[in-house]
Amino acid sequence: MARVSQEHLDARRRQILDGATRCFARNGFHATSMQDILREAGLSAGAVYRYFRSKEELIAAIADEAFATIRGAFEDAARTAPPPTPDVLLGRVMRTMLEEHVPGGDRQAFARLIVQVWTETLRNELLATTLDEGYTGMRQVWAKLVDAYRDNGLMGADVPADHVARTLIATAQGFIAQQALFGDVQVEVLENGLRGLMSMRETKIS
Amino acid sequence: MARVSQEHLDARRRQILDGATRCFARNGFHATSMQDILREAGLSAGAVYRYFRSKEELIAAIADEAFATIRGAFEDAARTAPPPTPDVLLGRVMRTMLEEHVPGGDRQAFARLIVQVWTETLRNELLATTLDEGYTGMRQVWAKLVDAYRDNGLMGADVPADHVARTLIATAQGFIAQQALFGDVQVEVLENGLRGLMSMRETKIS
Repeated sequence: MARVSQEHLDARRRQILDGATRCFARNGFHATSMQDILREAGLSAGAVYRYFRSKEELIAAIADEAFATIRGAFEDAARTAPPPTPDVLLGRVMRTMLEEHVPGGDRQAFARLIVQVWTETLRNELLATTLDEGYTGMRQVWAKLVDAYRDNGLMGADVPADHVARTLIATAQGFIAQQALFGDVQVEVLENGLRGLMSMRETKIS
Repeated sequence: MARVSQEHLDARRRQILDGATRCFARNGFHATSMQDILREAGLSAGAVYRYFRSKEELIAAIADEAFATIRGAFEDAARTAPPPTPDVLLGRVMRTMLEEHVPGGDRQAFARLIVQVWTETLRNELLATTLDEGYTGMRQVWAKLVDAYRDNGLMGADVPADHVARTLIATAQGFIAQQALFGDVQVEVLENGLRGLMSMRETKIS
């Protein structure tokens, strides 16, 4: 039997994940079958099931990758001094995600897939664990950023860093929900909105 | 035939909506049948179908009411000078919604229902229209508030009021998504998070 290199295994895994991402983004989670994914990836059932046994495993792997990419972008940002403010950073990450990682460029289909995955997560253990880990990681990197904001004199209020982290994650999640439900939400909306919030004061600006 | 007063009709409608809300919040959208709702409301099929012909009509009516309640709270706030800042206002509205309007007090079940409705909205015309109208109304009242913030010298940046409105709505939606997915998100998180963002500066605070 021919020796199969790690490189070959990785490329094959990549091929399956890319095919699955295209299928899911095009037709949603429920309307996509493992058959569709085999066809899209141009592989046999045996070749695919060696890596992933179900649609849930596939979507969990796709989500894992997405979380890792986003986390990486935030970690890079936390290392610069002063770190980019949330309007700049969230705008940058959203733009990269939507422009580079959305197959076929259909943002609304992509956002709809994410909302479908949220609903699916409510009844699937594997997805629940994946999202929980992704969310925990996201909270940690955002909290580090908030600490960096404070250390660099960019944030005044003495509130728990984790609360700011969760609020910023909520803003991104809501942006995705709006894109899924109503379409046509430009990243600029979020950038300007955050900039507006950051310019607020508790009392009249003198 | 006895004359049926408007009061009686309204009370009956209320009884049905309350029963349906309890069912949906307890078991989710899909696992709830019209039979369950009849049983919960203690009414016959004829009595219910006179008002609502489907689960979709029921959930749309419930969503309509929720939007109207929330919009009312924001309109009241926009009339006070200076208007309460987003951390105070969003916290107040969230608290009222979760504490007074969640049947049985199960916040996570309630949040899960909302996420299920989002997914349902992707394939149901009536729900799509209901949510679209609700969202448009919400954007308008928030935009009025943002104008009021500016008029009262509470917001410095010259960004479109609608962008701030959509960002604040996104924050609330994301809060609901987190409550559905991970549970146990206290309103305090959102209040502190917004307070933290409002205390940020583009450059070092002198």
